[in-house]
Amino acid sequence: MSGRAHPDVNPVTDGGDLPIKSSPHRHKVGVPPKQNMFHDFMYTFKETFFHDDPLRHFKDQPKSKKFMLGLQSVFPVFDWGRNYNLKKFRGDLIAGLTIASLCIPQDIGYAKLANLDPKYGLYSSFVPPLVYACMGSSRDIAIGPVAVVSLLLGTLLRAEVDPNTNPDEYLRLAFTATFFAGVTEAALGFFRLGFLIDFLSHAAVVGFMGGAAITIALQQLKGFLGIKKFTKKTDIIAVLDSVFSAAHHGWNWQTILIGASFLTFLLTSKFIGKKSKKLFWIPAIAPLISVIISTFFVYITRADKQGVQIVKHLDKGINPSSFHQIYFSGHYLAKGIRIGVVAGMVALTEAVAIGRTFAAMKDYQIDGNKEMVALGVMNVVGSMSSCYVATGSFSRSAVNFMAGCQTAVSNIIMSIVVLLTLLFLTPLFKYTPNAILAAIIINAVIPLIDIQAAILIFKVDKLDFVACMGAFFGVIFASVEIGLLIAVSISFAKILLQVTRPRTAVLGNIPRTSVYRNIQQYPEATMVPGVLTIRVDSAIYFSNSNYVRERIQRWLLEEEEKVKAASLPRIQFLIIEMLPVTDIDTSGIHALEDLYKSLQKRDIQLILANPGPLVIGKLHLSHFADILGYDHIFLTVADAVEACGPKLSDEV
Amino acid sequence: MSGRAHPDVNPVTDGGDLPIKSSPHRHKVGVPPKQNMFHDFMYTFKETFFHDDPLRHFKDQPKSKKFMLGLQSVFPVFDWGRNYNLKKFRGDLIAGLTIASLCIPQDIGYAKLANLDPKYGLYSSFVPPLVYACMGSSRDIAIGPVAVVSLLLGTLLRAEVDPNTNPDEYLRLAFTATFFAGVTEAALGFFRLGFLIDFLSHAAVVGFMGGAAITIALQQLKGFLGIKKFTKKTDIIAVLDSVFSAAHHGWNWQTILIGASFLTFLLTSKFIGKKSKKLFWIPAIAPLISVIISTFFVYITRADKQGVQIVKHLDKGINPSSFHQIYFSGHYLAKGIRIGVVAGMVALTEAVAIGRTFAAMKDYQIDGNKEMVALGVMNVVGSMSSCYVATGSFSRSAVNFMAGCQTAVSNIIMSIVVLLTLLFLTPLFKYTPNAILAAIIINAVIPLIDIQAAILIFKVDKLDFVACMGAFFGVIFASVEIGLLIAVSISFAKILLQVTRPRTAVLGNIPRTSVYRNIQQYPEATMVPGVLTIRVDSAIYFSNSNYVRERIQRWLLEEEEKVKAASLPRIQFLIIEMLPVTDIDTSGIHALEDLYKSLQKRDIQLILANPGPLVIGKLHLSHFADILGYDHIFLTVADAVEACGPKLSDEV
Repeated sequence: MSGRAHPDVNPVTDGGDLPIKSSPHRHKVGVPPKQNMFHDFMYTFKETFFHDDPLRHFKDQPKSKKFMLGLQSVFPVFDWGRNYNLKKFRGDLIAGLTIASLCIPQDIGYAKLANLDPKYGLYSSFVPPLVYACMGSSRDIAIGPVAVVSLLLGTLLRAEVDPNTNPDEYLRLAFTATFFAGVTEAALGFFRLGFLIDFLSHAAVVGFMGGAAITIALQQLKGFLGIKKFTKKTDIIAVLDSVFSAAHHGWNWQTILIGASFLTFLLTSKFIGKKSKKLFWIPAIAPLISVIISTFFVYITRADKQGVQIVKHLDKGINPSSFHQIYFSGHYLAKGIRIGVVAGMVALTEAVAIGRTFAAMKDYQIDGNKEMVALGVMNVVGSMSSCYVATGSFSRSAVNFMAGCQTAVSNIIMSIVVLLTLLFLTPLFKYTPNAILAAIIINAVIPLIDIQAAILIFKVDKLDFVACMGAFFGVIFASVEIGLLIAVSISFAKILLQVTRPRTAVLGNIPRTSVYRNIQQYPEATMVPGVLTIRVDSAIYFSNSNYVRERIQRWLLEEEEKVKAASLPRIQFLIIEMLPVTDIDTSGIHALEDLYKSLQKRDIQLILANPGPLVIGKLHLSHFADILGYDHIFLTVADAVEACGPKLSDEV
Repeated sequence: MSGRAHPDVNPVTDGGDLPIKSSPHRHKVGVPPKQNMFHDFMYTFKETFFHDDPLRHFKDQPKSKKFMLGLQSVFPVFDWGRNYNLKKFRGDLIAGLTIASLCIPQDIGYAKLANLDPKYGLYSSFVPPLVYACMGSSRDIAIGPVAVVSLLLGTLLRAEVDPNTNPDEYLRLAFTATFFAGVTEAALGFFRLGFLIDFLSHAAVVGFMGGAAITIALQQLKGFLGIKKFTKKTDIIAVLDSVFSAAHHGWNWQTILIGASFLTFLLTSKFIGKKSKKLFWIPAIAPLISVIISTFFVYITRADKQGVQIVKHLDKGINPSSFHQIYFSGHYLAKGIRIGVVAGMVALTEAVAIGRTFAAMKDYQIDGNKEMVALGVMNVVGSMSSCYVATGSFSRSAVNFMAGCQTAVSNIIMSIVVLLTLLFLTPLFKYTPNAILAAIIINAVIPLIDIQAAILIFKVDKLDFVACMGAFFGVIFASVEIGLLIAVSISFAKILLQVTRPRTAVLGNIPRTSVYRNIQQYPEATMVPGVLTIRVDSAIYFSNSNYVRERIQRWLLEEEEKVKAASLPRIQFLIIEMLPVTDIDTSGIHALEDLYKSLQKRDIQLILANPGPLVIGKLHLSHFADILGYDHIFLTVADAVEACGPKLSDEV
């Protein structure tokens, strides 16, 4: 825009044949140097898979240093372990004990969601956290079984094998699925495909999680009300039907009394924890206290003889090996892989979201791909030591963070507490009433119903809200699988919509500047007579090239009608602001060519303003820039408008 | 940028607590008025499905006029028919006769590609063009069977039913597939989902078409060499193996002689047609002349007794009804639907591409969705009158265009000629040698191998070229289905890549202007010390929000290292140019929040320049704009840099 503030016509041109001339002090649009044959291919490849430049630390280092860095890169424990001190240990010890007290009752309940014996929940809080502590890079995440993944795994597994009639096969399939969940996670990380989990939109995740939370809470009504005959389905209608048809004879008032009083206790403690951040430990240890008190109460009163259901037997001892139980052949292999891939992806989504959230809070970096490898290895090892799919738990990670954890050592502490529990304390859980576990789970999943986030989504984007509700209702009225499918489909549809229908805007000049902006956003912006300036707000690719061309033609048509109605000078120049057009492919170039031909027939000149390096390079290579003429390509809209001036003044 | 040309620091601010102050004459970023609840939803909906505003002509019209417009909209024949005159008819007559002479021999050959009797090819050139002439909006397209769709249909059908052992079932399944191909096309148009075919990238189509052309040409070796035992597979290895294993006893030299001489004749005529545009009719009638001469020759010499294979019997009479042959139930229904959907989509892609190309040449508009409805109805009617999938043929449309067609009447002329052929001339084809049909098809598919387009794709985009070659080799080494699958997959992968990895650029000030541009494109652009300006070149959505945040942080890290090495003042301001960020969702806002928090920890101020209407609206609604501060949002980068000035000068 050559330094002048006003875009008004300035007839500096020499009045020759060409209507558009460059003034001598105008900056040219830079045509980038000819590229090396595979340069742009490699650039795209690098930005796709290695955008974080993981090897940058290895540059210019001696070999021994490189080995150490490599070791630290695979096992971050060697990195942070060297600076570990007693002060940090104190923080980790307190945090570890707190999350252990929270995880033990949760584990027992979550295992039931996956239709597994309670001990497998505890097993899954012993081995995986140890593996993660050596390989993971998040300092705040708390590893173990989580509600949503347990429910999802349980639903998917039950569709294949009945856990009541074939408990052995069910268990073996669970380990198989866990193994392949781990393989999936590790493979995504190793092949640097971690970005695939970004295809699940935030809105869809909020809806899915909310729906899953309600489904999980509804499932707890079995334990909470002491119902013996309960539906195997998870949709709200079947569950409520099951609950109310059991109302007259199946509800157990003693169970309800125990459950309700402890749920009140848990909710109150949560409320207290929210009021004062210092009292975060109250809601954190409330579940364990509930378990202890209620177990003792049932043991004393022998309420189990009154129909109050209890955990009964819980095996003593640490994780047995389960390597030989994994199906590596037969028709269960394919099923295990399918279930594992789904469960692994969902587990990954949760863990990575947690890792990122807390890393942003403390301002440290997490390598998503490395993190996935750690989570994957952890589940592979877990599947061989009688664990089912473990991942990062949001509620326990938050407690971990607030309790002042410093490193992954808090996971080791938790793991040791779980080990001691497995070795010595499991018999004590015999009289723990199921109603307490139900209350603990209901209490734990309530925060997953993120109404605030849903309201924000509603405010910010109505389409996103539709996606959110689609996933939500899919989960509660159909099943977790259907909900997940809806969430993924809507997310993909949104991506496709985004690339097919890019926005376009008519630009006007903002008074007393040389800036051109969207006239809808800046009503004070004025259009230059005889010139229509349109901005295309996206790269022009095959998926949108026809739309872009048609949309530009429609803008032109509408403007011509307006101009005609107001008896203004006819449109002679169509300027396209190309700044947001970061790339173009052959279809896009064809669309520009078609537009150019069509405009030529109507005696309107096409002008491009501010094409980016890739675009100008490709227009050059395809010779469209020659056809259009380099004198029709400008650095800014203001330059272009100025150059149109002389010709316009002839007719106006 | 407030009219001043130079972005240099101008300490007009009042030196208060806030480091950033607005100078009084600066333009504010417009926050759009609060939107009506469903306004943006409806806007997106309209732009997605009704971006061409199909009802605009109906506005403010009386009822009778509206009815007429509605009729014209469904049957464009009522629109152009009213202005039809003798001059136009002369053009259409010549064009119609020319394409008829071209289509009759092609139809017979293409029907064989679909494993159908030759008569079905002729049937398909009679009914569908008539239907299209009433409903279609393209003036230049020539309707009938085409090579690629015939091959695809033949391959898909043969995978389900063997045409030799079960010819009846095969035929019925072909009609069923045609019916559902029509339903698919009409439904896509009716529900305005026409944009779905844009998801097949130009590069993938070029590769697919080239591969299909080679596959089709290879299939013709059977007829061309007079081989009797020929493989049922279509991949190049199986076909060449079949050809060479038959070399010693299966090749028929008389057949080869006839085929080769007429192929030479056809190629020569094509060459002449290319040399002079006026002689376009020579390659157009050459096939019919070849058929006539070779048929006469075989009849005279009775070469069929020497092993030259001939068409033999060809039924006389027009299309019988086939409504009752369509499967509307049973297990063939699902197969018919699947094949129909695939064949319909491919047929649509070809027809719409042709329609658009010629519409751009003559500068008239085609409504893609209406066009799809026309093509769909045409195939539905066709499936009930013994036709298989018809669509627009590129080679015949080009001839139609060059012969001077004016309207769809040329299709009616062609249709009448085909009718007369069916009624009276079919017996004459008895002695037509198959080698001639093979030569005609080879000659017809050669232009589909678009080497020029492939070279352009290679030049413009290496990734696109990989897609093109993937589809190409998929078709020739595996099958048309695999090739199509590869084409679609690569196209989708490209779209996903595009939204996951948007480009970012560091901006610098172009000397003597207030313009900030990519420093890689404009090496003369200079960076302002203490300020890092980054442009994000895409909307920030869930699919890229994490990447964008990480990429900005990496730019900052790299810049800080550079600054440190050169002992320049440290970076205090990070300006993000938001112009290309046309939209943002909740994930994107979270990413900005995370970035803001992380920068705060490092005492770097985040500044946004030039956010669009949607973005500023959403930042406002989500309160991020409040957190950031409206005094940290500027109209242009130059304004923002200017405002950073006073603070910077304190430390520099």
